[in-house]
Amino acid sequence: MTSTLFSPELFTKHNVYGVVLCGGSGTRLWPLSRQNRAKQFLALGGSEQTLLQTSLHRLDRMIPAQNRWLVLSPSQKALAEEQTGKIIGRCVVEPEARNTAPAVALAAWQLLQHNPDSTMVVLSSDHAIGNIAGFEESLARAVSLAAQDQFVVIGIRPTYPATGFGYIETAETMEPGGFRVASFHEKPDANTAADFIRKGTYLWNAGMFIWKTKTFWKAFSELQPEMAKLIETTNKSNLAEVYAKLQKLPIDIAFMEKTKNVACVPSLFDWSDIGSWAAVRECFPLDANGNALAGDVAAIDTQNTVVHSSGPFVATVGVSNLVVVATPDAVLVMPQNASQDVKKVITHLESKGRRSLL
Amino acid sequence: MTSTLFSPELFTKHNVYGVVLCGGSGTRLWPLSRQNRAKQFLALGGSEQTLLQTSLHRLDRMIPAQNRWLVLSPSQKALAEEQTGKIIGRCVVEPEARNTAPAVALAAWQLLQHNPDSTMVVLSSDHAIGNIAGFEESLARAVSLAAQDQFVVIGIRPTYPATGFGYIETAETMEPGGFRVASFHEKPDANTAADFIRKGTYLWNAGMFIWKTKTFWKAFSELQPEMAKLIETTNKSNLAEVYAKLQKLPIDIAFMEKTKNVACVPSLFDWSDIGSWAAVRECFPLDANGNALAGDVAAIDTQNTVVHSSGPFVATVGVSNLVVVATPDAVLVMPQNASQDVKKVITHLESKGRRSLL
Repeated sequence: MTSTLFSPELFTKHNVYGVVLCGGSGTRLWPLSRQNRAKQFLALGGSEQTLLQTSLHRLDRMIPAQNRWLVLSPSQKALAEEQTGKIIGRCVVEPEARNTAPAVALAAWQLLQHNPDSTMVVLSSDHAIGNIAGFEESLARAVSLAAQDQFVVIGIRPTYPATGFGYIETAETMEPGGFRVASFHEKPDANTAADFIRKGTYLWNAGMFIWKTKTFWKAFSELQPEMAKLIETTNKSNLAEVYAKLQKLPIDIAFMEKTKNVACVPSLFDWSDIGSWAAVRECFPLDANGNALAGDVAAIDTQNTVVHSSGPFVATVGVSNLVVVATPDAVLVMPQNASQDVKKVITHLESKGRRSLL
Repeated sequence: MTSTLFSPELFTKHNVYGVVLCGGSGTRLWPLSRQNRAKQFLALGGSEQTLLQTSLHRLDRMIPAQNRWLVLSPSQKALAEEQTGKIIGRCVVEPEARNTAPAVALAAWQLLQHNPDSTMVVLSSDHAIGNIAGFEESLARAVSLAAQDQFVVIGIRPTYPATGFGYIETAETMEPGGFRVASFHEKPDANTAADFIRKGTYLWNAGMFIWKTKTFWKAFSELQPEMAKLIETTNKSNLAEVYAKLQKLPIDIAFMEKTKNVACVPSLFDWSDIGSWAAVRECFPLDANGNALAGDVAAIDTQNTVVHSSGPFVATVGVSNLVVVATPDAVLVMPQNASQDVKKVITHLESKGRRSLL
């Protein structure tokens, strides 16, 4: 193991900026998440902070508020500013959602103008992270590798053969505390995922990237010259028009899989994308019976259950392994092991034209 | 079997009045039933009528509206009149709840003054009855037996060894279509109940009584002289004062178990006291998957479940044998086979002083 690298001064020295992607619109945590209130804007599991607020405060010892930028859609700006007014420096508004390559590139271009010597850390706004010290140390190693002109991705140590995440194949070690990346793999089928886990050299790609802004822009311009040139022409008055011409691509495919000098720092922290209500139970404090409770609820003779209310009083009696979520206008009840099936409710509501519930 | 006796004329000839007891305050169907909205005032299982309205309309071919009397508490009067204004003749207001003997006796005394040649049918306001023709025929037989100065109780054919009901032991047959009653038994323990079922001569006592008002008052005055005398002194101005002196007793103990000439007519209809949310599933129409659905609900991949909402939209996905009930301010989730445990929620709410939810 490498000794501890983290210090606040390391981040100051490298002019580190956090670029937090806020663009997602979640249906997986319906009925709490809605079209106009995506997951990152929710307080889950009894927390007083929303995931977005937690994602920003997680940076408190590394990146000062004015160096934190949010990338978001116009419709999210008011809500984001309401929640983060004093803990961010800028909102980069994407005129429309065009996947992560245009979003990351637009932020990188603006950051290059703002501070050409900056280091850019791309992060998500709606993930759960346990062990902040481990997160700080992981980013410190990544910033150090980025200072060597590496493009760094944080690799999450897999806990099961997930088919819902992309994988990073690691090769030889790189100091401090990283690996050369051999290849990226899109979401695998179950057999391939099991293979990856057996081999032990594969990590999950959680979309966390670290690089020097100047180094990134140079490489990105070579790999995606059309996109880069279009972005370089943007200004306040033509942004929507130009942005609409950018190719819809994820940054992984548009850049990471194509570029040289890719390094990976394995996570020294617990991580979840909170992709379902079952995951909420895994990410937040539990009561003595294994329940994740939030809001005005009573879990009587209840085990291993999520009971979450932002509306009516909710009582459960004698149930196990359920998810019960209530809001003022909608209630969901399902088993935890079927919690991906919330999409069936979304489909039902769409088919009935129940827009106010979506 | 006796041939069919029922005709509307039979009921006219005997001056039949329905006395519907409305006094109950249910907690067993919480959160839909509340202290100020007992079970009889609820519309269940997708019905457009409340149980009280259904209980009165069930009499349509037997007892005209003006001959239907409700016995209720002062706090229930406004709601009862709102629901039944045009389908009842009188409200008999009990100043306070003192069990059924005072309630029945007060109604009987008022009915004796109103129509001394009347026949009185005592019924509940919050039970479910299937097969109205069978109900009509049962009451026709009871009215015919009452015309012979019998005190008649309807006996429900037991469907399982219930410990929650009193039992009626039947003896020799009586025409038309009844039995002499050998004895009454309070709620038995499980072994005794199983014995009763094996013997086959025991029926459930559901609190439905039929007698000539004049005959009742004479016998009641002999068996409960103090209570009868007090009631005979009541008038509008002293009712509360006198009623407070009456002994709190059920009519079964105060009268039926003590009097002679007791007959029983076995039910020719299905019956439930709807004593739990599980019973709601047994009493109301089910969808193709065995679900009892009411209100704005979607039961997706859901079997044998009660989903009842008078408030928010409720979606269930992938669950079975549950009860899910939502109102604007409270939600309950429990397995059907534990649906008596709703009392644990009541206890919880009482302990927390959550009066508005009780």
